[in-house]
Amino acid sequence: MRIGFIGLGAMGRQIARRLIKAGHELIVWNRSRGPVDELVADGARAASSPKEAVQVDVLHTMLADDHAVGSVLFEAGALGAIPPGSVHVNHATISVALAKQLAERHRERDVGYVAAPVFGRPDSIARGLLHVLAAGAPRDVDRVMPLLEAIGQHVWRLGDRAERANVVKIAGNFMIASAIETMAEASALARANGVSASELFDVMTGTLFAGAVFEGYGALIAQHRYSPPGFALRLGYKDARLALAASDDAAVPMPIAAVLRDSFLDALAHGDADLDWSAIAEVTARRAQLDRRKS
Amino acid sequence: MRIGFIGLGAMGRQIARRLIKAGHELIVWNRSRGPVDELVADGARAASSPKEAVQVDVLHTMLADDHAVGSVLFEAGALGAIPPGSVHVNHATISVALAKQLAERHRERDVGYVAAPVFGRPDSIARGLLHVLAAGAPRDVDRVMPLLEAIGQHVWRLGDRAERANVVKIAGNFMIASAIETMAEASALARANGVSASELFDVMTGTLFAGAVFEGYGALIAQHRYSPPGFALRLGYKDARLALAASDDAAVPMPIAAVLRDSFLDALAHGDADLDWSAIAEVTARRAQLDRRKS
Amino acid sequence: MRIGFIGLGAMGRQIARRLIKAGHELIVWNRSRGPVDELVADGARAASSPKEAVQVDVLHTMLADDHAVGSVLFEAGALGAIPPGSVHVNHATISVALAKQLAERHRERDVGYVAAPVFGRPDSIARGLLHVLAAGAPRDVDRVMPLLEAIGQHVWRLGDRAERANVVKIAGNFMIASAIETMAEASALARANGVSASELFDVMTGTLFAGAVFEGYGALIAQHRYSPPGFALRLGYKDARLALAASDDAAVPMPIAAVLRDSFLDALAHGDADLDWSAIAEVTARRAQLDRRKS
Amino acid sequence: MRIGFIGLGAMGRQIARRLIKAGHELIVWNRSRGPVDELVADGARAASSPKEAVQVDVLHTMLADDHAVGSVLFEAGALGAIPPGSVHVNHATISVALAKQLAERHRERDVGYVAAPVFGRPDSIARGLLHVLAAGAPRDVDRVMPLLEAIGQHVWRLGDRAERANVVKIAGNFMIASAIETMAEASALARANGVSASELFDVMTGTLFAGAVFEGYGALIAQHRYSPPGFALRLGYKDARLALAASDDAAVPMPIAAVLRDSFLDALAHGDADLDWSAIAEVTARRAQLDRRKS
Repeated sequence: MRIGFIGLGAMGRQIARRLIKAGHELIVWNRSRGPVDELVADGARAASSPKEAVQVDVLHTMLADDHAVGSVLFEAGALGAIPPGSVHVNHATISVALAKQLAERHRERDVGYVAAPVFGRPDSIARGLLHVLAAGAPRDVDRVMPLLEAIGQHVWRLGDRAERANVVKIAGNFMIASAIETMAEASALARANGVSASELFDVMTGTLFAGAVFEGYGALIAQHRYSPPGFALRLGYKDARLALAASDDAAVPMPIAAVLRDSFLDALAHGDADLDWSAIAEVTARRAQLDRRKS
Repeated sequence: MRIGFIGLGAMGRQIARRLIKAGHELIVWNRSRGPVDELVADGARAASSPKEAVQVDVLHTMLADDHAVGSVLFEAGALGAIPPGSVHVNHATISVALAKQLAERHRERDVGYVAAPVFGRPDSIARGLLHVLAAGAPRDVDRVMPLLEAIGQHVWRLGDRAERANVVKIAGNFMIASAIETMAEASALARANGVSASELFDVMTGTLFAGAVFEGYGALIAQHRYSPPGFALRLGYKDARLALAASDDAAVPMPIAAVLRDSFLDALAHGDADLDWSAIAEVTARRAQLDRRKS
Repeated sequence: MRIGFIGLGAMGRQIARRLIKAGHELIVWNRSRGPVDELVADGARAASSPKEAVQVDVLHTMLADDHAVGSVLFEAGALGAIPPGSVHVNHATISVALAKQLAERHRERDVGYVAAPVFGRPDSIARGLLHVLAAGAPRDVDRVMPLLEAIGQHVWRLGDRAERANVVKIAGNFMIASAIETMAEASALARANGVSASELFDVMTGTLFAGAVFEGYGALIAQHRYSPPGFALRLGYKDARLALAASDDAAVPMPIAAVLRDSFLDALAHGDADLDWSAIAEVTARRAQLDRRKS
Repeated sequence: MRIGFIGLGAMGRQIARRLIKAGHELIVWNRSRGPVDELVADGARAASSPKEAVQVDVLHTMLADDHAVGSVLFEAGALGAIPPGSVHVNHATISVALAKQLAERHRERDVGYVAAPVFGRPDSIARGLLHVLAAGAPRDVDRVMPLLEAIGQHVWRLGDRAERANVVKIAGNFMIASAIETMAEASALARANGVSASELFDVMTGTLFAGAVFEGYGALIAQHRYSPPGFALRLGYKDARLALAASDDAAVPMPIAAVLRDSFLDALAHGDADLDWSAIAEVTARRAQLDRRKS
C-alpha cells in the first residue's frame, strides 16, 4: 500500500514517523524542504510536488489551517490529482464548513475522505499517546483503521459524516481554552485574596479536577511558564475562531467562546502570539493588576 | 471534649453523624426539629437553643449562607455565648467578607476560629469521601484536626487566615459552574452539528477531561437528568454570587463569572431553582432551540 | 412650611440652594461641617443632629448610597424621629430593595415617602436644568410638587410605588454607562484602523447619535479628559452594581451590565476610581494597546 | 457624464432614482429584472450585463455584502471591464478587508475608487435625508462630489484611504445595535419592576437620549413592532459580524460586540431573521420570561 503524506510541521512529522515505524512506505511533501529531508533520513521518499505525493492508495495530510488546506488542495491542484478509489485522511483542525466541502468534492471524484483530527502534542506522539477522532464512510474508515491505530493509542469512531470528527475536535479545543480561562479567573481571584495559584490548583486537581488539562495548564499558569509554547497562542486563537465560525453557521449562542475571543485578542495585542496559549491567563492577571499588588 | 453542632441540613447531618461515629458526644441544634430528632436517635443530645449548643469545647456550624450564619450568630446572640478558649469550626460556604468579619469578632473574644468548607455531596460523606479545606491560626487548626480528619478523606491546610479556605471553596465552585457552562456550550455546538452530547463527552472524558466534574455533570447534561438535584441551582447561583462579590471586593474582572450569572438568572426566570445546578445547560440549549431541530 | 435637608454633597448643596432661592426656609444637616456653613451663609439654619433636621413638614435627603442612607436613617435613628404626617423626599440613587423597604417603613409610621432621584450635574442644577423622577402616593407627590418643580426643569411622575423612580434612575445610568462603553469599543476599532475617535464621534453625533450623552462623553473620550471628574468612576461603578443587584433580585439576564462590571473593575484595579466614569474607555484602549500603535 | 449603477435593492433603487432626478443618465444592472424595469420607467437605460454597466465615467454599486460584491466584480468579471480613468463609487457596507483589497485592485488598473457607505433608510432617501460617508483619493472624491451631494443631505469626507469610510460605517452600525441591546436590557429590568418600556423610554429620550436611534428603536421595542422590518435582523447580524471581523483583524477586544453576536444568534435560532433587527430586544425579554410575569 502506497502512502502519501503532505504537511510535515511539528505534528505531521511525528505522525509520519509513526507510519514509517509501523513498516509503511511513505512519499512525503512539505512546503519547506527541511522536514522532508528529516523524513527521508527516516526512510521516506521525497515527492517533487503535491501532485506527486497524492498518487497513492492512502493520502494523509496535516496542514495548518483552512488556508493551507485550500492552498495545497485547490490552488496547487492536488485535489484533482488524487486517484479515484484512494482515500484521503485529513488530520488537520479545519472548519466544519471546509470539512463538508472536502467530503463533497472527494465524493464527486470517487475518492474516500476520512476526517481524522487528533488530540495530543508532538512529544506524546512518539510515545504512542495520540488520540485520533475518525469520521467518514465506514468502508473508508475501515480501510485506513490500521494506519490510524498505528499512529495513536486510541481511535474514536465518530460516524459517517466526516465533519463530525471536526466538530468534536473544535468543541474539545474550546473546552481546553475555557478551562484555561477558568483557571485564570479562579487563580486571579485567589491571588487577590492572598492564595497563590499553585495552592489553589493543588487543591482543585487533588479533589475535583484531576485530568491532564487542569494539571498541565494549571502548572504553566502557576509558574507563568509560557515559552517555549506547547501549542502556540496564535493557533489557539485560530481554533477559538473555528468554534465561533461553527456557532455562527449553526446559530448557537456561546458566551464563553465570546469571552475567549476577547482574551485571545488582548493577548495578541500585547504581542503574545508565540507564547503557549495558556498565556491568556496573563490577560486576566494584567486586568486585575495582580503583579502590582502585595499579597 | 464537648462538641456542639449547629445546622443539620443535608450536609450538616452527615458531618455530625461522622463525628458521632468517631466516638464524640455532640449537642446539636437546628432551626427545624426533624433533623435534631434524627441525630438524637444516633446518640446526640438536643440543645434547646443556639446559645446552649455553643457551650462546648469545639463548635461546628454548617449553615446555609451568610444570612443564616448572621441570623444564628448575631441576631440569636450565639456568638456572644461561645466560651473563650473554645474553637468555632465553620463549614459553611460563606462570603470572604463575612469570613474576615467572623475571624475578627472571635479573636476579640479569645475564641478560636477555623474556616472549614468542604467539597463533597451528602451521600459521599457517609462513605468518608469528603475533602475539607481548613484555614485558621495553626494552634486552632491543630486542635480540631482529629475532628476534621474524622469527617473526610483529606484535610487541605490553607494557612492561618480563615478566609483563605473560603476563597478556595468559592473559586472551586466557580470552576465547577464554569465546567458545566463549558460543557453546555460545547455540547450545544455538537448537537447542532449532529453529534450527541454523550458522544462528545465520551471522547472528552476519555481523553483530556477525566475527573469527577466532567464525568458526573457530563452524564447529567447528556441525559437531561436534573431532578432530584445533587446540588440545587438556587445554591449554585448563590455561590456564583459569592464569586462575584469577592471579585467586586478585590477588583478582579471575571468575565466567565459574569456569563454564569446570566445563565443562572435565565434558569431562575424559567422556574428551575430546584433542579440540579447543571440545568443551566438547558439555558444554552433553549437559546439555540436545539430541541426544535432535527439532528 | 418647614423643610429639612440632609446630605450636602456636591449635588445636595445645589438642590438645597434652589429651595432657598425659591423662598423656602431650610434646616440642614451634613456629616461634615463645611457644607453646612456654606448653606447657612445662604440663609439656611443648621441642625445639631439628623434627628433635629427631620422635625419638619418636608424632609429632603440626598445621601451618597444605601450605606449612607442606612447610617443616617436607621443607625442614627433619624427615621424614628420623622413626624407622622410629614413627607420624606429621597433624592439619592439607592437600590430598588432599599427603596421598597423605606416606603414600607414610612407607611407604617404614617409618613409620606417620595422617591425623587435626579438626572443632572451639580453645575447644571444652578442653571435649573435638573430632571426629577418622582414616584410615591399621589397625595404625597402632589404635596411636594412645588418643591420638586423649584429644583429642576421638569418633574417626571412615575406612579405611586416609590421604587419605580429608582428603577428608572438605575436603568438610565446603566444606559449612560453602556453608551460610554459602546463609544469606547467603537472608537478603539476606529483608531486601530487609522480613524481618530473625534472623527468617528463627529460623524455619529452629527447623524444618528445627537443627544447630551454621546456629545458630552464622546468629547471626553476623544480628548482623554477624565479629570476633574463630572461623575466619579467609583460612583459609576456603584450605580452599575445597583443595576446588577436589581437584575439579580428580578432574575433578568443583562449581559451588557456584566461587561460594564468588568470594565469598571479593570479601571478600579488600575487606580482610576477618582477619574470621570467615562475613563472606562481607557480599559478598552489599553486592552487593544492602542497607545503603542502608530496609526 | 455616463453613470452606471449596479445593485437595485431597496436602497440602491432609491439612490439611483436620486441621481436620475438630479438630471443624470444612468445605465443600470441588477441580478433580478424587476427593479431594472422600475428604473427604466424612471428614465434609466438597462444594461444587458454587469460588464456593460461598468462602461461609464462613474460606476455606482450598492450590493448586499462582500459575497455579492465578489460575485459581480470578480466572478462575473465586471472589475476587469471598468475603464481606466473612471471612478467606482461603492455604497455597500462591506468588510474593511474587502475595502482595502478593492482599493488596491482598482489602483493597479488606474481606476479611481471611492468608498461611500450611507446612513439612512430607503424611505428617507427620497426625502433627501441620506448621510454619505466618503473616503478615497481626494481627486476621485472631488470628481464624484456632485453625485454624492445629489443623493443625500450631507457628505462626510473621511480621508484618502477608502476603508476609513467602511470602518466608520461598521462602527456606526455597531453603535446602533448596541443601543438596541442596551434599551432591551434597560427595559427588561424596568418591566420586571413594573415600569413599562414606554415609560422608561419617554423619560430617557426626554432627558439624556434625544436622537433618532433611541427615539425610533425605543418605539419599536416598546410596541414589539418588528414587522415589516426597516432593516432586517439578518442584515444587522451581517453587520455585527463585520465589526467582529474588523476587530479580529485589528486585535481589538470588543465585549459588547460579542454580546450582540449571541443576541443575534439567539434571535436567528428562533426564526427572526426577517424581523427588524431591533427584535433582538425580544431575546432579552424571553430570557427573563417577561411575558409570563404579571407586572
